[in-house]
Amino acid sequence: MTQTTPNHTQTVSGWAAHDTSAKITPYTFKRRENGVTDVTIKILYCGICHTDLHHAKDDWGITMYPVVPGHEITGVITKVGSDVKGFKEGDRVGVGCLAASCLDCEYCKTDQENYCDNLQFVYNGIFWDGSITYGGYSEMLVADYRYVVHIPESLPMDAVAPLLCAGITVFSPLKDHDLVSSPGKKIGVVGLGGLGHMAVKFGKAFGHHVTVISTSPSKEAEAKERLGADDFLLSSNPDQLQAAKRSLDFILDTVSADHALMPILELLKVNGTLFMVGAPDKPLQLPAFPLIFGKRSIKGGIIGGIKETQEMLEVCGKHNITCDIELIKPDTINEAFVRLAKNDVRYRFVIDIAGTSKI
Amino acid sequence: MTQTTPNHTQTVSGWAAHDTSAKITPYTFKRRENGVTDVTIKILYCGICHTDLHHAKDDWGITMYPVVPGHEITGVITKVGSDVKGFKEGDRVGVGCLAASCLDCEYCKTDQENYCDNLQFVYNGIFWDGSITYGGYSEMLVADYRYVVHIPESLPMDAVAPLLCAGITVFSPLKDHDLVSSPGKKIGVVGLGGLGHMAVKFGKAFGHHVTVISTSPSKEAEAKERLGADDFLLSSNPDQLQAAKRSLDFILDTVSADHALMPILELLKVNGTLFMVGAPDKPLQLPAFPLIFGKRSIKGGIIGGIKETQEMLEVCGKHNITCDIELIKPDTINEAFVRLAKNDVRYRFVIDIAGTSKI
Repeated sequence: MTQTTPNHTQTVSGWAAHDTSAKITPYTFKRRENGVTDVTIKILYCGICHTDLHHAKDDWGITMYPVVPGHEITGVITKVGSDVKGFKEGDRVGVGCLAASCLDCEYCKTDQENYCDNLQFVYNGIFWDGSITYGGYSEMLVADYRYVVHIPESLPMDAVAPLLCAGITVFSPLKDHDLVSSPGKKIGVVGLGGLGHMAVKFGKAFGHHVTVISTSPSKEAEAKERLGADDFLLSSNPDQLQAAKRSLDFILDTVSADHALMPILELLKVNGTLFMVGAPDKPLQLPAFPLIFGKRSIKGGIIGGIKETQEMLEVCGKHNITCDIELIKPDTINEAFVRLAKNDVRYRFVIDIAGTSKI
Repeated sequence: MTQTTPNHTQTVSGWAAHDTSAKITPYTFKRRENGVTDVTIKILYCGICHTDLHHAKDDWGITMYPVVPGHEITGVITKVGSDVKGFKEGDRVGVGCLAASCLDCEYCKTDQENYCDNLQFVYNGIFWDGSITYGGYSEMLVADYRYVVHIPESLPMDAVAPLLCAGITVFSPLKDHDLVSSPGKKIGVVGLGGLGHMAVKFGKAFGHHVTVISTSPSKEAEAKERLGADDFLLSSNPDQLQAAKRSLDFILDTVSADHALMPILELLKVNGTLFMVGAPDKPLQLPAFPLIFGKRSIKGGIIGGIKETQEMLEVCGKHNITCDIELIKPDTINEAFVRLAKNDVRYRFVIDIAGTSKI
């Protein structure tokens, strides 16, 4: 489709998967000219989200090959459209998952574009002009300014990149449950990966008691010593879980694999909420009794709105919060995918797209 | 246990199930003397809740036979303990599911006794003195006054009885979501039985647009003409469900049988809540995507606190809301159980315990 869109005249070098082998190879494609509401961004860094791997492998049956993944993008503006507000050449900016939305519905009008029914993602989406979107595994991006955010000067562009997806995905539920500026709550984090380690960082920065819940005993030292978690529960240890019943106000569940909700729900106090940000492919088993006898909730959410993403970045600037990353060159994306599939990364791979870092 | 509790000296006639056949027969047993914080109640009416049938059959493996069911009790006070406050002889009162709680935890202290971890039910529970509790299928009850409510003079004692369980079970979630005094919302009710028909009555009385969602086409006329529902969705009709996507603010799911959550969740607007008050024995299938892409919640709850139950009764008095009932004599409880198991009742059986009604 891109090839038939008349104003897609700019040649861009990137990296794409071409079939379900998910093998990433260099790929040259076209992007649109910079429109009146667009900014052109020289991409510096792009994080590797598990979603990239799902799309590359077509795990969800929705991939339009070739797919150029990447929705944790940081870079510098090189061109600004005439109707763009708030951005200028040279600005350090970020782009996350969103490429377009209807701009007209109740969600777009209330800074919840991420729940617009006509939402289009930054890759494997369909832009307003009918073209397929290509993501951040590429040297340059043209983005409508309404989906672009500023990066605080104090934060490094590489370790900030994953905040655009992993960061906002856990920040938004915390903000939504009044946990950003009301310290002293007891928070649980299920799973200690890209999302989970950000949840621990935010939880501690916002003054909460943070308990990590994991299937892996080796994560205990990691959680406590490296990330400052207060407590650790091994989800295979019924005695530990029993002793912690009704102790937590809020739990962020970051696990995408199938897992039992019953013992996690029982950890919540009455009126507590389990917020799911992982996206298991298959339905989980939902036991009604721990919900009913504890007036508990299970809630879900996807990333956050643009205004909220900007707010998160300001908060990260204030608290000096970034993601723990492993920086890689573009020619090792395939190796990174193999390790990512085994959750062998602390905690996010970030691609040095422009070759600006010494790796 | 009751028989060995020294002060259990009062002989009471009632009706009990003695084994998993669930056959109800007349049964004479002992109740405690009226203590300083107790009131003695001459029982007039008792509703038949589906929970009674579950206990009679020992469906949950927790029944202590013989079991005297019944937790939708109305009657008149005949004796008042010296420390009782707010009740006097001759008062028209109700008793619901609760017989005791710790009175000391954060939930008991904030009028949420129904979530106390040491909650004891009005039958098949263990009272403070160690005795097994016997419910409302009996001529007389001794109840601690802190679990007793007043019945408004304007309401009939028979059709009020089911409010003590079915009524408060659906009222509490509506109140909890600010739907009692904020009209104009779009509410869904899944299932049109004892709980569901009360939800429709409350929803309409509180000024909302009410949609009934049911597997049974015959319920459409019933829902609209008899109960005043505004809309009806047949849950087996994908076109109807598709057309109603993202249209409801709040859904009360009253169905205990296994059922698909996905199409119901999709009916909710962004930020909408599906509140489960039915208690399926086995886990339901929980699809993550409709939660995540709509920031939706699934919540559960059980009955309500005593203060809230009293408030509900005042609201029912004001709006003249009662339950639609079929009044039966105690010697036809077994026939009622058979019909209840088939959901063949509009909408609640109530036992005329004292023989005061002409049936």
